[in-house]
Amino acid sequence: MKKSHPRTLALRCLLATSLITGSTSATAVIPQQSTETDIVASARSYREANEHRILGEFLEFLRIPNVAADLPNIRINAEWLMRAMEARGIKTQLLETNGSPYVFGELNVPGAEQTLLFYCHYDGQPADPTRWVGHRPWQPVFRNGRLEDGAEIVPIPTESGVPIDPEWRIYARSASDDRSPIIMLFAALDALRAGALEPTSNIKFLFEGDEEAGSPNMSLIADQHAAALAADIVFFADGPKHPSGRPTLTFGARGITTVQLTVYGPTQPLHSGHYGNWAPNPAMRLAQLLATMKDPDSGRVMVEGWYDDRVPLSETEVAAIANIPDDPTQSPEALGFARPEGEWERRVEAITYPSLNVRGISSAWVGDETRTIVPDTAIAELDLRLVHDIHPSSQVERLVAHIQQQGFHVIGEDPDASTRAAHPMLAKVTQGEFGYPSARTSMDLPVSKAVLGRLREAFGTEPVALPTTGGSVPLYAFTDMLGLPTILVPTVNHDNNQHSPNENLKILNLWKGIEIMAVLLTL
Amino acid sequence: MKKSHPRTLALRCLLATSLITGSTSATAVIPQQSTETDIVASARSYREANEHRILGEFLEFLRIPNVAADLPNIRINAEWLMRAMEARGIKTQLLETNGSPYVFGELNVPGAEQTLLFYCHYDGQPADPTRWVGHRPWQPVFRNGRLEDGAEIVPIPTESGVPIDPEWRIYARSASDDRSPIIMLFAALDALRAGALEPTSNIKFLFEGDEEAGSPNMSLIADQHAAALAADIVFFADGPKHPSGRPTLTFGARGITTVQLTVYGPTQPLHSGHYGNWAPNPAMRLAQLLATMKDPDSGRVMVEGWYDDRVPLSETEVAAIANIPDDPTQSPEALGFARPEGEWERRVEAITYPSLNVRGISSAWVGDETRTIVPDTAIAELDLRLVHDIHPSSQVERLVAHIQQQGFHVIGEDPDASTRAAHPMLAKVTQGEFGYPSARTSMDLPVSKAVLGRLREAFGTEPVALPTTGGSVPLYAFTDMLGLPTILVPTVNHDNNQHSPNENLKILNLWKGIEIMAVLLTL
Repeated sequence: MKKSHPRTLALRCLLATSLITGSTSATAVIPQQSTETDIVASARSYREANEHRILGEFLEFLRIPNVAADLPNIRINAEWLMRAMEARGIKTQLLETNGSPYVFGELNVPGAEQTLLFYCHYDGQPADPTRWVGHRPWQPVFRNGRLEDGAEIVPIPTESGVPIDPEWRIYARSASDDRSPIIMLFAALDALRAGALEPTSNIKFLFEGDEEAGSPNMSLIADQHAAALAADIVFFADGPKHPSGRPTLTFGARGITTVQLTVYGPTQPLHSGHYGNWAPNPAMRLAQLLATMKDPDSGRVMVEGWYDDRVPLSETEVAAIANIPDDPTQSPEALGFARPEGEWERRVEAITYPSLNVRGISSAWVGDETRTIVPDTAIAELDLRLVHDIHPSSQVERLVAHIQQQGFHVIGEDPDASTRAAHPMLAKVTQGEFGYPSARTSMDLPVSKAVLGRLREAFGTEPVALPTTGGSVPLYAFTDMLGLPTILVPTVNHDNNQHSPNENLKILNLWKGIEIMAVLLTL
Repeated sequence: MKKSHPRTLALRCLLATSLITGSTSATAVIPQQSTETDIVASARSYREANEHRILGEFLEFLRIPNVAADLPNIRINAEWLMRAMEARGIKTQLLETNGSPYVFGELNVPGAEQTLLFYCHYDGQPADPTRWVGHRPWQPVFRNGRLEDGAEIVPIPTESGVPIDPEWRIYARSASDDRSPIIMLFAALDALRAGALEPTSNIKFLFEGDEEAGSPNMSLIADQHAAALAADIVFFADGPKHPSGRPTLTFGARGITTVQLTVYGPTQPLHSGHYGNWAPNPAMRLAQLLATMKDPDSGRVMVEGWYDDRVPLSETEVAAIANIPDDPTQSPEALGFARPEGEWERRVEAITYPSLNVRGISSAWVGDETRTIVPDTAIAELDLRLVHDIHPSSQVERLVAHIQQQGFHVIGEDPDASTRAAHPMLAKVTQGEFGYPSARTSMDLPVSKAVLGRLREAFGTEPVALPTTGGSVPLYAFTDMLGLPTILVPTVNHDNNQHSPNENLKILNLWKGIEIMAVLLTL
């Protein structure tokens, strides 16, 4: 990170510090330098004057179906993005893959001494139109509040010309995840220019079209285009901000790997009267095996070495977690249970540990389909979330060793007759193709402190700073493969029905997001 | 049981004993008394002369659909039965229920001093015609062997007039379960009369049309028609005989009760990244709970009191089990596993204990449907097989107490928000409607010894005598409600695909069954 330019991160850090320590005016330190509050004000006044235009562009974008597997429409999305970027003077390039193309853009600023890379994804989750209320997923509508609270569809303001209530919401697939950050970036750039606040850093954009398909090409792109993607910092703009509404920054993400575990009984389901409690029951065996994996009291994973490679939280991270406000929408009571399962009372602490989650179990039939049989197999689907610096393959190896220690013969394929005859306890363990390591950017880096300071100064409040998100996003391609400090910038409302029917974006979050992006663009 | 008439069971018992102890001729003891081997020979010669006629009647019966829920066709079945019985001089009566009627018949013999009751069921399992090969379930066909061995459909011999190979099979729903014993009885009665061997006991018939629906009216019928059903012995003619081909008698059946167990996590499935290993995982909790129920080494159920009310096997029963030949088609290797799950090496011993069988588990999704979530619920379906003298409700009470001892708050309905908030561990336990106690007739009763002796004498081989079947049939209505000694008489081939597509009956079993029924009808 270079530090000589007045618009560098380090300077902003100093400015922020001066504000905290009581300096009344940053402009007094560096004349002709707009303050962060000026930038916010400028973005706000531009937005207030252009709300219908901004929404018009957003609606146009939302009307293009964007499921990763739908390659013809994905290409229409990519072309739409290129036109929108080129209209803003951004040099664009399609980075082709064997799936969806990445849309890459560069805005080079003469004399700039640093480069900022903004990542968003333009694909969205598939949508079942039968579960959307009142419209189709790619036919955006406005509601005067939350559908769940009974809000109704209102006329589209870009057509009716009526004033826009920031409590209204746009309902459409990808309204939140993850097209709105792209619109925020475009509007922020327009706003800066309208206020004569051109970015002074080089700006790069990387828009992915395969994120909801698990980013299968992210590593390849990082590998093939390392030079093009070089930057001083990456902003990964995705996900919902803290429900407190405060600006939110997240400095890492958990990795993930998945395992399917199959335990075997007889070759065919057998009559439970004639064979029950004699033929081995794979459902019971699976239950007994899973029960060895977690301590029911502490919630700790009992697989040997599970936590060994975890890098303990830094003092800064511990303090950051302590400062995260409690979220009443995510309390045990709100979610429907009495208390967390283990020793970590706070969710934000629990997610800094590697997990072992049983995400599904099935053996034979239940409910109306129930039959009185001894099942032939029992299957458990596990996801293992990873934290710094635990690697997918080593965690799976630990799990396999644990299963072997319980007396199971572990196989990778369905057993044949001789394998069945030779091993009283058989378990097939297969690792899912989808998965990647965790990523973490230190909150103690100057760049991390600088970004936090900028937001603190701009919005007059302490940002919510999370050392990691509990979820998994392929940040590792930036942090570990490209060696770039990477910060997640979540902006949308927490109740956006992400990945579900009736996804939506609260207009207030769009407006606030434009201000946040304006601050980040002028680092 | 009266004992003065030459055709009484006790006499037959003496005859059998005299044969075993070396007497060369039973007819020498009681002149004019046909021996059991005479009866078998008579039945056989009648059958050999009437194979096409017997099969013709059977085919006519098999062509009437007989699913219990299909009441119009069930009534056509009942009327067909009444005509077939009345043509044989049997006085018939429909015992109506709110479901299928029972067809009751009486053949009163002047001077008879004892009464035999034969039970069969005329309804069959539902059938999915798409899974039947080469014909529809109620369009019987003949094959020259087993479908699984590649046997082909042959012309129906009653139409072609060709000789019938006893290795052929009739493929049709209920060919084995349980219409063939009815045909065996009718043919045996015809055979006896053709050889001037009229029964000397009163004979009663009870044909049920709701057995595959769980015999919901059996208790009611036993209660309402106790006098009509009074008998000295009940023969419950259903099920496959021992694969050795030896005549088989079973002196009891296990009872059954079912339990559905639901464990709760959050109200909705939650993202496993954000909430995993913090929100309680019901799939893991269910696994941990199930694991407390069985000892993985001994296979013993660890629920307190599970075995307390079990009446130990008598010396006769222990000896009978020891004498049951091993069945190579039911060995662990044949069924696809290395060894039995617990301490009971032999299946025939294991089924004399009460079981706890996990017949199905489900939580969230597996396979292609898998989602990275913390499930909201996890369900296990259990069946508890019961032996003498363990009652359904007390076994369920023991299970509930066990679940409570593991720290669960047990409920009978889905929990509301306040119940969720109050109890960290919640389990819903519901007992299935279907279920009844076990039944056992002592093998030491004179009547039991007499029947065994008759078959031993008739076929010159030791019958396979099982103290109980592992499956559940509602014998208790006869044994416990009516106080009648009741013996199961299984006659069909073990590989009949009972309850499955391509159900079949091996002709040899039909022929042998006629001989067995002839012996029993002349007790």
